Amino acid sequence: MKQETSVIEGRNAVIEAYRSKRPIDKLYLLDGCHDGPVMTIRREAQKHGTYIKYMTRERLDQISQTGKHQGVIAYVAAYAYVEVEEMLRAAQNKGEPPFLILLDNIEDPHNLGAIIRTANLAGAHGVIIPKNRAVGLTATVARTSAGALNDTPVAKVTNLGRTIEELKKEGLWFVCADMAGTVMYDLDLKGPIGLVIGSEGEGVGRLIREKCDLTASIPMRGSIDSLNASVAAGVLAYEIVRQRMGKG
Amino acid sequence: MKQETSVIEGRNAVIEAYRSKRPIDKLYLLDGCHDGPVMTIRREAQKHGTYIKYMTRERLDQISQTGKHQGVIAYVAAYAYVEVEEMLRAAQNKGEPPFLILLDNIEDPHNLGAIIRTANLAGAHGVIIPKNRAVGLTATVARTSAGALNDTPVAKVTNLGRTIEELKKEGLWFVCADMAGTVMYDLDLKGPIGLVIGSEGEGVGRLIREKCDLTASIPMRGSIDSLNASVAAGVLAYEIVRQRMGKG
Repeated sequence: MKQETSVIEGRNAVIEAYRSKRPIDKLYLLDGCHDGPVMTIRREAQKHGTYIKYMTRERLDQISQTGKHQGVIAYVAAYAYVEVEEMLRAAQNKGEPPFLILLDNIEDPHNLGAIIRTANLAGAHGVIIPKNRAVGLTATVARTSAGALNDTPVAKVTNLGRTIEELKKEGLWFVCADMAGTVMYDLDLKGPIGLVIGSEGEGVGRLIREKCDLTASIPMRGSIDSLNASVAAGVLAYEIVRQRMGKG
Repeated sequence: MKQETSVIEGRNAVIEAYRSKRPIDKLYLLDGCHDGPVMTIRREAQKHGTYIKYMTRERLDQISQTGKHQGVIAYVAAYAYVEVEEMLRAAQNKGEPPFLILLDNIEDPHNLGAIIRTANLAGAHGVIIPKNRAVGLTATVARTSAGALNDTPVAKVTNLGRTIEELKKEGLWFVCADMAGTVMYDLDLKGPIGLVIGSEGEGVGRLIREKCDLTASIPMRGSIDSLNASVAAGVLAYEIVRQRMGKG
Protein backbone atom coordinates (compact mmCIF):
# COMPACT_ATOMS: atom_id res chain seq x y z
CA MET A 1 0.00 0.00 0.00
CA LYS A 2 2.94 2.33 0.54
CA GLN A 3 4.09 4.56 -2.26
CA GLU A 4 6.79 7.21 -2.18
CA THR A 5 5.55 10.61 -1.05
CA SER A 6 6.23 13.64 -3.17
CA VAL A 7 5.55 17.08 -4.39
CA ILE A 8 5.19 17.35 -8.14
CA GLU A 9 5.79 20.68 -9.83
CA GLY A 10 5.29 21.77 -13.42
CA ARG A 11 2.55 21.18 -15.96
CA ASN A 12 3.74 18.07 -17.79
CA ALA A 13 4.80 16.34 -14.60
CA VAL A 14 1.40 16.86 -13.00
CA ILE A 15 -0.51 15.78 -16.15
CA GLU A 16 1.68 12.68 -16.24
CA ALA A 17 0.94 11.96 -12.56
CA TYR A 18 -2.79 12.00 -13.27
CA ARG A 19 -2.32 9.75 -16.33
CA SER A 20 -0.43 7.21 -14.23
CA LYS A 21 -3.18 7.40 -11.59
CA ARG A 22 -1.06 8.54 -8.69
CA PRO A 23 -3.25 9.61 -5.72
CA ILE A 24 -3.04 13.41 -5.76
CA ASP A 25 -4.31 14.93 -2.53
CA LYS A 26 -4.09 18.58 -3.24
CA LEU A 27 -3.39 20.90 -6.13
CA TYR A 28 -2.17 24.48 -6.02
CA LEU A 29 -2.94 26.43 -9.20
CA LEU A 30 -1.99 29.92 -10.30
CA ASP A 31 -5.04 32.09 -9.83
CA GLY A 32 -6.47 33.50 -13.07
CA CYS A 33 -4.43 31.26 -15.35
CA HIS A 34 -6.57 29.75 -18.10
CA ASP A 35 -4.25 28.41 -20.76
CA GLY A 36 -4.56 24.96 -22.26
CA PRO A 37 -2.35 22.73 -20.09
CA VAL A 38 -3.62 24.33 -16.87
CA MET A 39 -7.21 23.78 -17.99
CA THR A 40 -6.37 20.14 -18.75
CA ILE A 41 -4.97 19.73 -15.23
CA ARG A 42 -8.05 21.38 -13.76
CA ARG A 43 -10.31 18.98 -15.63
CA GLU A 44 -8.29 16.00 -14.42
CA ALA A 45 -8.41 17.36 -10.87
CA GLN A 46 -12.18 17.75 -11.02
CA LYS A 47 -12.57 14.30 -12.49
CA HIS A 48 -10.55 12.80 -9.63
CA GLY A 49 -12.07 15.03 -6.97
CA THR A 50 -8.71 16.58 -6.05
CA TYR A 51 -8.89 19.51 -3.67
CA ILE A 52 -7.81 22.65 -5.62
CA LYS A 53 -6.54 25.88 -4.16
CA TYR A 54 -5.89 28.97 -6.28
CA MET A 55 -2.88 31.07 -5.36
CA THR A 56 -0.91 34.13 -6.41
CA ARG A 57 2.38 33.70 -8.22
CA GLU A 58 4.22 35.05 -5.17
CA ARG A 59 2.71 32.42 -2.89
CA LEU A 60 3.50 29.62 -5.37
CA ASP A 61 7.08 30.90 -5.66
CA GLN A 62 7.38 30.70 -1.87
CA ILE A 63 6.04 27.15 -1.72
CA SER A 64 7.93 25.82 -4.74
CA GLN A 65 10.86 23.54 -4.04
CA THR A 66 12.23 23.57 -7.58
CA GLY A 67 11.48 27.16 -8.57
CA LYS A 68 9.95 25.78 -11.79
CA HIS A 69 6.30 25.26 -10.87
CA GLN A 70 4.78 26.84 -14.03
CA GLY A 71 1.71 27.69 -11.97
CA VAL A 72 1.08 24.09 -10.86
CA ILE A 73 2.10 22.28 -7.65
CA ALA A 74 0.60 18.91 -6.75
CA TYR A 75 0.87 16.84 -3.59
CA VAL A 76 0.85 13.09 -3.97
CA ALA A 77 -0.31 10.95 -1.07
CA ALA A 78 2.34 8.77 0.52
CA TYR A 79 -0.18 5.95 0.77
CA ALA A 80 -2.99 4.87 -1.48
CA TYR A 81 -6.53 5.42 -0.26
CA VAL A 82 -9.03 2.61 -0.19
CA GLU A 83 -12.77 2.57 -0.79
CA VAL A 84 -15.17 2.55 2.16
CA GLU A 85 -16.67 -0.71 0.83
CA GLU A 86 -13.33 -2.44 1.39
CA MET A 87 -13.48 -1.55 5.08
CA LEU A 88 -16.94 -3.08 5.39
CA ARG A 89 -15.70 -6.19 3.62
CA ALA A 90 -12.74 -6.42 6.03
CA ALA A 91 -15.12 -6.27 9.00
CA GLN A 92 -17.31 -8.94 7.44
CA ASN A 93 -14.33 -11.20 6.75
CA LYS A 94 -13.30 -10.94 10.40
CA GLY A 95 -16.86 -11.59 11.54
CA GLU A 96 -16.93 -8.32 13.46
CA PRO A 97 -19.50 -5.52 13.46
CA PRO A 98 -17.97 -2.64 11.45
CA PHE A 99 -16.11 -0.01 13.49
CA LEU A 100 -15.06 3.04 11.49
CA ILE A 101 -13.55 6.34 12.63
CA LEU A 102 -14.58 9.45 10.67
CA LEU A 103 -12.64 12.69 11.01
CA ASP A 104 -14.26 16.06 10.45
CA ASN A 105 -11.89 19.05 10.28
CA ILE A 106 -8.75 17.31 11.52
CA GLU A 107 -5.98 19.27 9.86
CA ASP A 108 -2.97 18.48 12.02
CA PRO A 109 -0.88 15.66 10.52
CA HIS A 110 0.36 14.54 13.96
CA ASN A 111 -3.21 14.14 15.15
CA LEU A 112 -4.17 12.24 11.99
CA GLY A 113 -1.17 9.93 12.39
CA ALA A 114 -1.89 9.29 16.08
CA ILE A 115 -5.56 8.57 15.30
CA ILE A 116 -4.67 6.05 12.56
CA ARG A 117 -2.40 4.41 15.14
CA THR A 118 -5.24 4.30 17.67
CA ALA A 119 -7.63 2.96 15.01
CA ASN A 120 -5.20 0.13 14.34
CA LEU A 121 -4.85 -0.90 17.99
CA ALA A 122 -8.51 -0.42 18.88
CA GLY A 123 -9.39 -2.79 16.04
CA ALA A 124 -11.22 -0.24 13.90
CA HIS A 125 -11.65 -1.33 10.27
CA GLY A 126 -10.70 2.01 8.79
CA VAL A 127 -10.48 5.78 9.01
CA ILE A 128 -12.51 8.07 6.75
CA ILE A 129 -11.47 11.64 6.01
CA PRO A 130 -13.14 14.26 3.83
CA LYS A 131 -11.45 15.46 0.67
CA ASN A 132 -11.60 19.16 1.33
CA ARG A 133 -9.70 20.82 4.15
CA ALA A 134 -8.45 17.64 5.79
CA VAL A 135 -4.77 16.86 5.75
CA GLY A 136 -3.82 14.03 3.37
CA LEU A 137 -1.59 11.02 3.92
CA THR A 138 1.67 12.93 3.98
CA ALA A 139 5.03 11.59 5.09
CA THR A 140 4.47 13.17 8.54
CA VAL A 141 1.18 11.31 8.93
CA ALA A 142 2.84 8.05 7.88
CA ARG A 143 5.67 8.57 10.36
CA THR A 144 3.35 9.54 13.24
CA SER A 145 1.17 6.52 12.54
CA ALA A 146 4.15 4.33 13.51
CA GLY A 147 3.45 1.79 10.79
CA ALA A 148 -0.31 1.61 11.32
CA LEU A 149 -0.90 2.96 7.80
CA ASN A 150 0.35 -0.34 6.42
CA ASP A 151 -2.61 -2.18 7.92
CA THR A 152 -5.29 0.34 8.72
CA PRO A 153 -6.97 1.60 5.56
CA VAL A 154 -7.86 5.24 5.04
CA ALA A 155 -10.61 6.40 2.68
CA LYS A 156 -10.99 9.93 1.40
CA VAL A 157 -14.56 10.91 0.55
CA THR A 158 -16.01 13.91 -1.26
CA ASN A 159 -18.87 14.47 1.15
CA LEU A 160 -18.67 13.11 4.68
CA GLY A 161 -22.39 13.66 5.24
CA ARG A 162 -23.32 11.62 2.20
CA THR A 163 -20.95 8.84 3.24
CA ILE A 164 -22.68 8.75 6.64
CA GLU A 165 -26.07 8.46 4.94
CA GLU A 166 -24.81 5.61 2.76
CA LEU A 167 -23.29 3.76 5.69
CA LYS A 168 -26.49 4.10 7.68
CA LYS A 169 -28.14 2.04 4.94
CA GLU A 170 -25.51 -0.63 5.65
CA GLY A 171 -26.67 -0.74 9.25
CA LEU A 172 -24.09 1.51 10.91
CA TRP A 173 -24.97 3.84 13.77
CA PHE A 174 -23.08 7.10 14.11
CA VAL A 175 -21.83 8.55 17.34
CA CYS A 176 -20.38 12.01 17.38
CA ALA A 177 -17.95 13.33 19.98
CA ASP A 178 -19.47 16.42 21.57
CA MET A 179 -19.13 18.01 25.00
CA ALA A 180 -22.88 18.50 25.15
CA GLY A 181 -23.58 14.80 24.57
CA THR A 182 -24.48 11.92 26.86
CA VAL A 183 -21.62 10.62 28.98
CA MET A 184 -20.11 7.87 26.83
CA TYR A 185 -20.45 5.18 29.52
CA ASP A 186 -24.23 5.54 29.35
CA LEU A 187 -24.50 4.87 25.60
CA ASP A 188 -24.66 1.50 23.90
CA LEU A 189 -21.72 1.50 21.49
CA LYS A 190 -21.51 -2.23 20.83
CA GLY A 191 -23.12 -2.52 17.37
CA PRO A 192 -21.87 -1.54 13.89
CA ILE A 193 -20.56 1.95 14.54
CA GLY A 194 -19.01 5.06 13.02
CA LEU A 195 -17.23 7.30 15.54
CA VAL A 196 -17.07 10.92 14.34
CA ILE A 197 -14.30 13.13 15.74
CA GLY A 198 -13.98 16.86 15.07
CA SER A 199 -11.16 19.32 15.44
CA GLU A 200 -10.15 20.69 18.82
CA GLY A 201 -11.23 24.21 18.06
CA GLU A 202 -14.47 23.64 16.20
CA GLY A 203 -15.57 20.14 17.13
CA VAL A 204 -17.75 18.24 14.70
CA GLY A 205 -19.51 20.57 12.23
CA ARG A 206 -23.25 21.15 12.71
CA LEU A 207 -24.34 19.44 9.47
CA ILE A 208 -22.39 16.31 10.30
CA ARG A 209 -23.46 16.37 13.96
CA GLU A 210 -27.10 16.45 12.92
CA LYS A 211 -26.65 13.30 10.87
CA CYS A 212 -25.35 11.37 13.87
CA ASP A 213 -27.63 9.07 15.88
CA LEU A 214 -25.87 9.65 19.20
CA THR A 215 -23.62 12.27 20.75
CA ALA A 216 -21.11 11.04 23.28
CA SER A 217 -19.22 13.18 25.75
CA ILE A 218 -16.07 12.40 27.68
CA PRO A 219 -16.45 13.38 31.35
CA MET A 220 -14.63 16.67 31.93
CA ARG A 221 -13.56 17.37 35.50
CA GLY A 222 -11.05 20.13 34.87
CA SER A 223 -10.85 23.79 34.03
CA ILE A 224 -10.03 23.70 30.32
CA ASP A 225 -12.15 23.20 27.22
CA SER A 226 -11.10 20.04 25.49
CA LEU A 227 -8.68 17.18 25.21
CA ASN A 228 -6.18 16.99 22.40
CA ALA A 229 -8.12 15.60 19.38
CA SER A 230 -6.10 12.40 19.16
CA VAL A 231 -6.44 11.78 22.92
CA ALA A 232 -10.22 12.31 22.69
CA ALA A 233 -10.37 9.89 19.76
CA GLY A 234 -8.38 7.35 21.79
CA VAL A 235 -10.57 7.62 24.87
CA LEU A 236 -13.78 7.23 22.83
CA ALA A 237 -12.40 4.43 20.64
CA TYR A 238 -11.41 2.49 23.76
CA GLU A 239 -14.84 2.97 25.30
CA ILE A 240 -16.14 1.16 22.21
CA VAL A 241 -13.48 -1.55 22.73
CA ARG A 242 -14.49 -1.93 26.40
CA GLN A 243 -18.17 -2.30 25.57
CA ARG A 244 -17.44 -4.77 22.78
CA MET A 245 -15.34 -6.85 25.17
CA GLY A 246 -18.24 -6.81 27.64
CA LYS A 247 -15.93 -5.47 30.36
CA GLY A 248 -16.55 -3.20 33.35
CA MET B 1 0.69 28.60 39.73
CA LYS B 2 1.58 31.18 37.11
CA GLN B 3 4.25 33.57 38.28
CA GLU B 4 4.84 37.11 37.24
CA THR B 5 5.79 37.61 33.65
CA SER B 6 9.31 38.88 33.30
CA VAL B 7 10.61 40.96 30.45
CA ILE B 8 14.00 40.32 28.89
CA GLU B 9 15.54 42.98 26.68
CA GLY B 10 18.60 42.97 24.46
CA ARG B 11 20.01 40.45 22.01
CA ASN B 12 22.42 38.49 24.18
CA ALA B 13 19.98 38.30 27.07
CA VAL B 14 17.24 36.86 24.87
CA ILE B 15 19.57 34.39 23.13
CA GLU B 16 20.73 33.31 26.58
CA ALA B 17 17.13 32.87 27.74
CA TYR B 18 16.45 30.52 24.81
CA ARG B 19 19.65 28.61 25.52
CA SER B 20 18.67 28.09 29.14
CA LYS B 21 15.25 26.94 27.95
CA ARG B 22 13.19 29.60 29.69
CA PRO B 23 9.61 29.53 28.37
CA ILE B 24 9.32 32.64 26.21
CA ASP B 25 5.71 33.50 25.46
CA LYS B 26 6.07 36.45 23.15
CA LEU B 27 8.77 38.23 21.25
CA TYR B 28 8.80 41.78 19.89
CA LEU B 29 11.31 42.32 17.08
CA LEU B 30 12.36 45.45 15.22
CA ASP B 31 10.63 45.35 11.85
CA GLY B 32 12.99 45.03 8.86
CA CYS B 33 16.02 44.16 10.95
CA HIS B 34 17.90 41.21 9.47
CA ASP B 35 21.32 41.17 11.06
CA GLY B 36 22.91 38.03 12.47
CA PRO B 37 21.91 37.99 16.15
CA VAL B 38 18.33 39.01 15.33
CA MET B 39 18.07 36.21 12.76
CA THR B 40 19.42 33.76 15.36
CA ILE B 41 16.73 34.89 17.78
CA ARG B 42 14.08 34.56 15.09
CA ARG B 43 15.18 31.01 14.35
CA GLU B 44 15.07 30.10 18.03
CA ALA B 45 11.65 31.70 18.29
CA GLN B 46 10.35 29.67 15.35
CA LYS B 47 11.88 26.51 16.75
CA HIS B 48 10.14 27.06 20.10
CA GLY B 49 6.87 28.26 18.62
CA THR B 50 7.15 31.71 20.20
CA TYR B 51 4.63 34.28 19.06
CA ILE B 52 6.54 37.03 17.19
CA LYS B 53 5.37 40.58 16.58
CA TYR B 54 7.31 43.01 14.41
CA MET B 55 7.38 46.64 15.55
CA THR B 56 8.80 50.02 14.69
CA ARG B 57 11.73 51.39 16.68
CA GLU B 58 9.48 54.08 18.13
CA ARG B 59 7.03 51.48 19.47
CA LEU B 60 9.83 49.35 20.95
CA ASP B 61 11.30 52.47 22.59
CA GLN B 62 7.92 53.13 24.18
CA ILE B 63 7.58 49.59 25.52
CA SER B 64 11.17 49.16 26.67
CA GLN B 65 11.75 49.30 30.38
CA THR B 66 15.54 49.57 30.17
CA GLY B 67 15.89 51.74 27.09
CA LYS B 68 18.44 49.20 25.78
CA HIS B 69 16.32 46.75 23.83
CA GLN B 70 18.56 46.53 20.70
CA GLY B 71 15.45 45.67 18.69
CA VAL B 72 14.49 42.65 20.84
CA ILE B 73 12.05 42.37 23.74
CA ALA B 74 10.96 38.98 25.07
CA TYR B 75 8.29 38.03 27.60
CA VAL B 76 8.96 35.02 29.78
CA ALA B 77 6.07 33.25 31.47
CA ALA B 78 7.50 31.23 34.27
CA TYR B 79 5.48 28.25 35.35
CA ALA B 80 6.63 27.21 38.74
CA TYR B 81 6.94 23.60 39.74
CA VAL B 82 5.10 22.62 42.89
CA GLU B 83 5.90 20.10 45.59
CA VAL B 84 4.26 16.69 45.56
CA GLU B 85 2.82 17.40 49.04
CA GLU B 86 0.76 20.23 47.59
CA MET B 87 -0.92 17.79 45.21
CA LEU B 88 -1.86 15.52 48.09
CA ARG B 89 -3.25 18.52 49.98
CA ALA B 90 -5.30 19.53 46.92
CA ALA B 91 -6.82 16.04 46.78
CA GLN B 92 -7.57 16.15 50.50
CA ASN B 93 -9.19 19.59 50.21
CA LYS B 94 -11.46 18.27 47.47
CA GLY B 95 -12.28 15.17 49.49
CA GLU B 96 -11.02 12.92 46.70
CA PRO B 97 -8.58 9.99 46.78
CA PRO B 98 -5.29 11.25 45.30
CA PHE B 99 -4.81 10.64 41.57
CA LEU B 100 -1.35 11.48 40.27
CA ILE B 101 0.22 10.86 36.87
CA LEU B 102 3.95 10.07 36.85
CA LEU B 103 5.96 10.23 33.65
CA ASP B 104 9.05 8.12 33.11
CA ASN B 105 11.15 8.97 30.03
CA ILE B 106 8.65 11.29 28.33
CA GLU B 107 10.83 13.64 26.35
CA ASP B 108 8.51 15.00 23.71
CA PRO B 109 7.08 18.40 24.70
CA HIS B 110 3.87 17.82 22.71
CA ASN B 111 3.25 14.60 24.61
CA LEU B 112 3.96 16.29 27.94
CA GLY B 113 1.60 19.15 27.09
CA ALA B 114 -1.15 16.78 25.95
CA ILE B 115 -0.75 14.68 29.11
CA ILE B 116 -1.01 17.75 31.38
CA ARG B 117 -4.18 18.61 29.46
CA THR B 118 -5.54 15.10 30.00
CA ALA B 119 -4.57 15.22 33.69
CA ASN B 120 -6.57 18.42 34.05
CA LEU B 121 -9.72 17.03 32.45
CA ALA B 122 -9.50 13.60 34.06
CA GLY B 123 -9.38 15.31 37.44
CA ALA B 124 -5.84 14.23 38.34
CA HIS B 125 -4.29 16.26 41.14
CA GLY B 126 -0.93 16.66 39.48
CA VAL B 127 1.76 15.39 37.13
CA ILE B 128 5.18 14.29 38.35
CA ILE B 129 8.22 14.25 36.10
CA PRO B 130 11.80 13.27 36.88
CA LYS B 131 14.53 15.92 36.80
CA ASN B 132 16.86 14.07 34.52
CA ARG B 133 16.07 13.42 30.87
CA ALA B 134 12.45 14.61 30.95
CA VAL B 135 11.48 17.70 29.04
CA GLY B 136 10.73 20.74 31.24
CA LEU B 137 7.86 23.19 31.15
CA THR B 138 8.85 24.89 27.93
CA ALA B 139 6.67 27.26 25.93
CA THR B 140 5.74 24.36 23.63
CA VAL B 141 4.53 22.35 26.62
CA ALA B 142 2.56 25.33 27.91
CA ARG B 143 1.00 25.93 24.49
CA THR B 144 0.19 22.24 23.92
CA SER B 145 -1.36 22.04 27.38
CA ALA B 146 -3.98 24.52 26.17
CA GLY B 147 -4.07 26.39 29.46
CA ALA B 148 -4.08 23.31 31.70
CA LEU B 149 -0.72 24.35 33.18
CA ASN B 150 -2.49 27.19 34.96
CA ASP B 151 -4.49 24.76 37.08
CA THR B 152 -2.79 21.39 36.97
CA PRO B 153 0.39 21.39 39.03
CA VAL B 154 3.59 19.76 37.84
CA ALA B 155 6.31 18.55 40.21
CA LYS B 156 9.86 17.76 39.17
CA VAL B 157 11.56 15.19 41.37
CA THR B 158 15.15 14.02 41.59
CA ASN B 159 14.37 10.33 41.86
CA LEU B 160 11.05 9.00 40.61
CA GLY B 161 11.57 5.67 42.40
CA ARG B 162 12.10 7.37 45.77
CA THR B 163 9.02 9.55 45.21
CA ILE B 164 6.99 6.39 44.56
CA GLU B 165 8.28 4.87 47.82
CA GLU B 166 7.37 8.01 49.75
CA LEU B 167 3.89 8.19 48.23
CA LYS B 168 3.26 4.53 49.04
CA LYS B 169 3.65 5.51 52.70
CA GLU B 170 0.86 8.04 52.12
CA GLY B 171 -1.41 5.21 50.99
CA LEU B 172 -1.06 5.47 47.21
CA TRP B 173 -1.04 2.41 44.97
CA PHE B 174 0.99 2.52 41.80
CA VAL B 175 -0.14 1.20 38.47
CA CYS B 176 2.27 1.06 35.61
CA ALA B 177 1.32 1.01 31.95
CA ASP B 178 2.80 -2.10 30.37
CA MET B 179 1.77 -4.27 27.44
CA ALA B 180 2.49 -7.38 29.50
CA GLY B 181 0.15 -6.31 32.30
CA THR B 182 -3.40 -7.24 33.26
CA VAL B 183 -6.07 -5.79 30.99
CA MET B 184 -6.95 -2.50 32.70
CA TYR B 185 -10.67 -3.30 32.95
CA ASP B 186 -9.86 -6.20 35.27
CA LEU B 187 -7.93 -4.11 37.82
CA ASP B 188 -9.38 -2.11 40.70
CA LEU B 189 -8.17 1.44 40.10
CA LYS B 190 -10.59 3.29 42.36
CA GLY B 191 -8.39 4.06 45.37
CA PRO B 192 -5.55 6.57 45.90
CA ILE B 193 -3.49 6.00 42.79
CA GLY B 194 -0.36 6.94 40.89
CA LEU B 195 -0.48 6.12 37.18
CA VAL B 196 3.00 5.63 35.71
CA ILE B 197 3.45 6.20 31.96
CA GLY B 198 6.65 5.51 30.06
CA SER B 199 7.94 6.57 26.69
CA GLU B 200 6.69 5.00 23.48
CA GLY B 201 9.96 3.37 22.63
CA GLU B 202 11.12 2.14 26.01
CA GLY B 203 8.00 1.99 28.17
CA VAL B 204 8.41 2.37 31.91
CA GLY B 205 11.97 1.60 33.04
CA ARG B 206 12.55 -1.70 34.87
CA LEU B 207 13.47 -0.15 38.24
CA ILE B 208 10.32 1.95 38.27
CA ARG B 209 8.16 -0.90 36.99
CA GLU B 210 9.33 -3.13 39.84
CA LYS B 211 8.20 -0.55 42.37
CA CYS B 212 4.65 -0.54 41.02
CA ASP B 213 1.90 -2.58 42.68
CA LEU B 214 -0.01 -3.28 39.47
CA THR B 215 0.70 -3.34 35.77
CA ALA B 216 -2.15 -2.41 33.47
CA SER B 217 -2.35 -3.08 29.78
CA ILE B 218 -4.55 -1.48 27.16
CA PRO B 219 -6.12 -4.13 24.89
CA MET B 220 -4.22 -4.20 21.61
CA ARG B 221 -6.09 -5.61 18.64
CA GLY B 222 -3.90 -4.32 15.85
CA SER B 223 -0.61 -4.97 14.15
CA ILE B 224 1.60 -2.27 15.65
CA ASP B 225 3.45 -2.01 18.96
CA SER B 226 2.04 0.84 20.94
CA LEU B 227 -0.23 3.83 21.11
CA ASN B 228 1.14 7.34 21.10
CA ALA B 229 2.25 8.03 24.72
CA SER B 230 -0.28 10.79 25.30
CA VAL B 231 -3.10 8.68 23.85
CA ALA B 232 -2.11 5.75 26.11
CA ALA B 233 -2.04 8.10 29.12
CA GLY B 234 -5.51 9.37 28.15
CA VAL B 235 -7.02 5.91 27.75
CA LEU B 236 -5.62 4.73 31.12
CA ALA B 237 -6.50 7.97 32.95
CA TYR B 238 -10.08 7.67 31.71
CA GLU B 239 -10.30 4.06 32.82
CA ILE B 240 -9.55 5.41 36.31
CA VAL B 241 -12.24 8.08 35.81
CA ARG B 242 -14.76 5.45 34.72
CA GLN B 243 -14.08 3.22 37.71
CA ARG B 244 -14.25 6.17 40.12
CA MET B 245 -17.60 7.18 38.62
CA GLY B 246 -18.82 3.61 39.13
CA LYS B 247 -19.85 3.39 35.46
CA GLY B 248 -19.98 0.50 33.03
